[in-house]
Amino acid sequence: MADPGHTDLMNFSSDTSAPAHPKVLEAVLAANTGLEASYGNDAITRRLRTHLADVFGTEDFDYWLTASGTVSNALALSCFCPPTGAVLCHAGAHIAVDERGAPEFFSGGGKLQLLRGPDGKIGAAQLDEALARINHDFVHETPAHVLSLTNLTENGTAYSVAEVTEYAAKAHAAGLTLHMDGARLGNALVATGASAAEMSWQAGVDVLTFGLTKTGAMGCEIILLFGKAREKKRELEARAKRSGHMPPKMRYLAAQAEAMLAGGLWLELAAHANAMARRMADGLQGQGVELAFEPQGNEVFAMLSDAQAKALRAAGAVFYPWMGGSQRLVCSWATTTDEVDAFLDALKS
Amino acid sequence: MADPGHTDLMNFSSDTSAPAHPKVLEAVLAANTGLEASYGNDAITRRLRTHLADVFGTEDFDYWLTASGTVSNALALSCFCPPTGAVLCHAGAHIAVDERGAPEFFSGGGKLQLLRGPDGKIGAAQLDEALARINHDFVHETPAHVLSLTNLTENGTAYSVAEVTEYAAKAHAAGLTLHMDGARLGNALVATGASAAEMSWQAGVDVLTFGLTKTGAMGCEIILLFGKAREKKRELEARAKRSGHMPPKMRYLAAQAEAMLAGGLWLELAAHANAMARRMADGLQGQGVELAFEPQGNEVFAMLSDAQAKALRAAGAVFYPWMGGSQRLVCSWATTTDEVDAFLDALKS
Amino acid sequence: MADPGHTDLMNFSSDTSAPAHPKVLEAVLAANTGLEASYGNDAITRRLRTHLADVFGTEDFDYWLTASGTVSNALALSCFCPPTGAVLCHAGAHIAVDERGAPEFFSGGGKLQLLRGPDGKIGAAQLDEALARINHDFVHETPAHVLSLTNLTENGTAYSVAEVTEYAAKAHAAGLTLHMDGARLGNALVATGASAAEMSWQAGVDVLTFGLTKTGAMGCEIILLFGKAREKKRELEARAKRSGHMPPKMRYLAAQAEAMLAGGLWLELAAHANAMARRMADGLQGQGVELAFEPQGNEVFAMLSDAQAKALRAAGAVFYPWMGGSQRLVCSWATTTDEVDAFLDALKS
Amino acid sequence: MADPGHTDLMNFSSDTSAPAHPKVLEAVLAANTGLEASYGNDAITRRLRTHLADVFGTEDFDYWLTASGTVSNALALSCFCPPTGAVLCHAGAHIAVDERGAPEFFSGGGKLQLLRGPDGKIGAAQLDEALARINHDFVHETPAHVLSLTNLTENGTAYSVAEVTEYAAKAHAAGLTLHMDGARLGNALVATGASAAEMSWQAGVDVLTFGLTKTGAMGCEIILLFGKAREKKRELEARAKRSGHMPPKMRYLAAQAEAMLAGGLWLELAAHANAMARRMADGLQGQGVELAFEPQGNEVFAMLSDAQAKALRAAGAVFYPWMGGSQRLVCSWATTTDEVDAFLDALKS
Repeated sequence: MADPGHTDLMNFSSDTSAPAHPKVLEAVLAANTGLEASYGNDAITRRLRTHLADVFGTEDFDYWLTASGTVSNALALSCFCPPTGAVLCHAGAHIAVDERGAPEFFSGGGKLQLLRGPDGKIGAAQLDEALARINHDFVHETPAHVLSLTNLTENGTAYSVAEVTEYAAKAHAAGLTLHMDGARLGNALVATGASAAEMSWQAGVDVLTFGLTKTGAMGCEIILLFGKAREKKRELEARAKRSGHMPPKMRYLAAQAEAMLAGGLWLELAAHANAMARRMADGLQGQGVELAFEPQGNEVFAMLSDAQAKALRAAGAVFYPWMGGSQRLVCSWATTTDEVDAFLDALKS
Repeated sequence: MADPGHTDLMNFSSDTSAPAHPKVLEAVLAANTGLEASYGNDAITRRLRTHLADVFGTEDFDYWLTASGTVSNALALSCFCPPTGAVLCHAGAHIAVDERGAPEFFSGGGKLQLLRGPDGKIGAAQLDEALARINHDFVHETPAHVLSLTNLTENGTAYSVAEVTEYAAKAHAAGLTLHMDGARLGNALVATGASAAEMSWQAGVDVLTFGLTKTGAMGCEIILLFGKAREKKRELEARAKRSGHMPPKMRYLAAQAEAMLAGGLWLELAAHANAMARRMADGLQGQGVELAFEPQGNEVFAMLSDAQAKALRAAGAVFYPWMGGSQRLVCSWATTTDEVDAFLDALKS
Repeated sequence: MADPGHTDLMNFSSDTSAPAHPKVLEAVLAANTGLEASYGNDAITRRLRTHLADVFGTEDFDYWLTASGTVSNALALSCFCPPTGAVLCHAGAHIAVDERGAPEFFSGGGKLQLLRGPDGKIGAAQLDEALARINHDFVHETPAHVLSLTNLTENGTAYSVAEVTEYAAKAHAAGLTLHMDGARLGNALVATGASAAEMSWQAGVDVLTFGLTKTGAMGCEIILLFGKAREKKRELEARAKRSGHMPPKMRYLAAQAEAMLAGGLWLELAAHANAMARRMADGLQGQGVELAFEPQGNEVFAMLSDAQAKALRAAGAVFYPWMGGSQRLVCSWATTTDEVDAFLDALKS
Repeated sequence: MADPGHTDLMNFSSDTSAPAHPKVLEAVLAANTGLEASYGNDAITRRLRTHLADVFGTEDFDYWLTASGTVSNALALSCFCPPTGAVLCHAGAHIAVDERGAPEFFSGGGKLQLLRGPDGKIGAAQLDEALARINHDFVHETPAHVLSLTNLTENGTAYSVAEVTEYAAKAHAAGLTLHMDGARLGNALVATGASAAEMSWQAGVDVLTFGLTKTGAMGCEIILLFGKAREKKRELEARAKRSGHMPPKMRYLAAQAEAMLAGGLWLELAAHANAMARRMADGLQGQGVELAFEPQGNEVFAMLSDAQAKALRAAGAVFYPWMGGSQRLVCSWATTTDEVDAFLDALKS
């Protein structure tokens, strides 16, 4: 793994704190030549189709590039949830907790209906109950139109392909669209061993937020519409335009995506981040620290004592407290084994 | 002027077709090291304050970075125009014609009230009439809360500092906020010889969309709140967040801005673009071609005959027809004298 | 005509200042017995279908009751104009000038595109130009989805069935929905001699705001969806609910509608109002007063001199100045010949 | 109590199924004479101020009339909760469950943050936790701006004045506005023995939805702004206008309100409804039926067995199943002792 050259040892605050992978910058630099058509009509954006077709093993998709995960989710949801409808999601989902009402804003006042379940995953019973309650003929209540699953979840756990397939089937049977917030999709794929195709359209995902920023881009997310969902392509573009997410010089977004997808760099980087988290988790457990959730991706939620957390911070470690009393430790493509080991050593002493 | 290395001779389609200036890329590359706080709390974003204070000659401002002019305008307007209010603007303004309803979306259904006037500039009489009509006690009609001026205008003309000062005074007297869409602010400053301070807060501008993308960045616009308008800072950030315009790795936006502002690169690039447009205009007029508007910035609107336009396009020139029968020719930092001369030569034959 | 018992002689301020016709109150009183299902499931609301089928000569419609014309227009438009779209209407239309942004609010930020034309009617050339400009593939501009015609217009003139038919055909050919704001539909029908069927679905109207409040109800408007537009029925009801326009005891709205429709009371009242306006217009012209528009319904726009207007107001007459320098005189079902004659006498002296 | 003349014995479906009290109709009839200024400028609407001042024991208020509880809540909330903010309410609140997203629509995409607590009342600990979490400086999460209490709650229980006072103090200390949904305010006042003043502004309520429809009007709710909240009066009116809740002939709403308030009719009717519910509750408990909540107002939630519910419905009784397995029995001003006794007799056999 390329060394990012940083001196910020023991920074586990977020994978968004990491720089971009050097190959991403190289691609951006290479894109910076000559005049290009604006607003997504440039050559790089267009040839992304081939890369995406390779990654997802299908030609039956459309795509749009954005620079933020929040807007990818909100744009995607707004195409499938009318103002009079609701989106089912986990109570701890990023769209519910961390996006300052973006889904409500983009959908024109649609609702999020929050479901519970352990490990950041929606419980099957809770989903069944919510789906059973939908009644489009009862005008007073807000019927769900979309089910949104986050994979990797906010608790660092992963839905398996089987789980996504099961939930998608239930959602489809109830007339819902299935959205996946894949801000950390690469981490989930590495965790489950599934391919991008298996975890997305083959499992029943209709619209995917495919995140590359946390994986190693400067800022690049891809919204993918699969199959029947492609009929929303024009609406998606119109909504992107009016929300300011149609940057004139889109080639710089596309170049990032190309660099990440070409040769599977994104999966390589995700695998590294996962491995660093695994090393951290093993080291913590070896020292008797309990974990709030079984770490499957690049995040570890450690039940450190207050004294431990304080001492680690005093030693220079950076990380955030999480709901439920744990401390969140996030690894990225730029996390080094030295950094993890330094943290574990600091904990020991 | 650095040669952009392009071979797209005679491409006058848009200043957004140009690549970014090499120094912008250098800065982005230099920013790509080590871990940084996310969401605008990084060091580069913070130190932009100093650069902006230099450019605008004041400390009394707040700022926010975005990647698109559309969203800079829409965010700025939404902080000052309530859903029950209206924005006064020219009928040909970018916010009215080219942003797919972004102002209405961000303001929650506010209105644009379209005013007329020659050369893309709001007429003084039209402004007076619109301001006189505002009656907050008459609940049925929608009162104006903001006056939005575009400088450089969509017709390539410039409001003088005196004009902006006069209109701002009228707007303030009527209780309105003054917004300036400065997507091509640099071109307007070069055209008028005014400083950024003179054209903005000193003239009465409360909130400014300060565009750097068309000037030579990859994608970087700055929203500036001056004086009393600073009380909207927190609201601006909240609205940026919920509309997906708070990219996690904001350092890459900030690095672009820093490269453009440092040493006055942005003004140097705008001056070049203006000079190229001047050369084009002079050459056209020398060949007897009438211009629809007096070109003051980097855009020339030429009344080419259909035969001329057709022949030029056949010769490889790229440009778009404009409302009113003219052809728009846009120069950028990357336009070369060779390119202009090739166009003029092609017209001659 | 029943005498409303008022002593407000010479009140020509608005047809909304008039009381309700006594038969409307009788019907409301008669409805006030026993328990009834809420939210439009009551017997009176259900049996309105028969009355409406009689009036419109078709069974191919759905309907919803509201208490205000503003919301009937806004609800109707919001079902056919997406947030990314626009509604074509006259620059002087009620939806553009007098509804405080209701269409923008209900559509989630859609736009009104204002067209010109004499006598409050959209000009054919302006309509053609606007329709020709629609380009759903050009993402930057906002394409029109609906054409809204007001009949009777805000200038007291009427579109003929032939005009509506022509405009509807053009709108349909361009993929638009045709909405008619019929706040004074009765007056327009009396003016043109057309039947409700001829002026609405037979002419190509897809969705109609059928106003009864100005005609003589307490507050009752009916939104009608014809033919293919009926597929929006459920959405209309959901939007009505969430905007607070699904009153629990809807029977009182329905009773008003039934009283107005039964036996053609609404047309009788509209005819009276038109006759009073005709009497007023003839009297004014007999005294040499010029009219701004040819009065076809219940409104007269008189070019009274300032002295005349002042003297009439001093004599107790009530009326409002209008744009363009005229004075608007509105007659209603409750206007008496005495009242008109008193006004004309006062003018004479 | 006047007999409503209905034959719908044993209809306990809803208090919105009841007709209006005869005195309400008399008042509407009496209002139907002469011409009146439109849009709330009529004499009856204006003189309501005196009645409201009597009822609430203060002059420090403003008011607006609507025809639906849903819109009264939504308008009230939209004046105090910005699009970037949230409203704290009970998970079972009418605004959360039964208004099809009206608060989200009117606020421009604000959120409802759902709190738990027994008996339909927000728990003190849950409130404390929610208030403690508010952090306006953390831009990613949506801070609460309003606390909304429903009194009478959706479970037929009442907040005491002491509880409202305590919650209001907490809310104010955290910078929130206190809204009370008083769709059944009269029932809560009768239940607690509190005056309207004690339960509203004296307890800290800033904005009140004062419902009269369920109490006995045709359709009439009053939004009251107390003290500092009055600064939102103009905004409230603008929002009412653009949402179609400014009916031209507002006198008919005002007449209903006047009839209900004059002589305390509304409290008399609420007391009757409560007494009928008490009679029902006592009778049920006498027969060993468990109640899901202690009935304090006009609603009884009875844990009837499936067999019992089936038999009662077969006998002609009308009532709805509720969440949690109970059956909801609602009494109104029009419920008679005969009706209650018939129900209890039917249950016995």
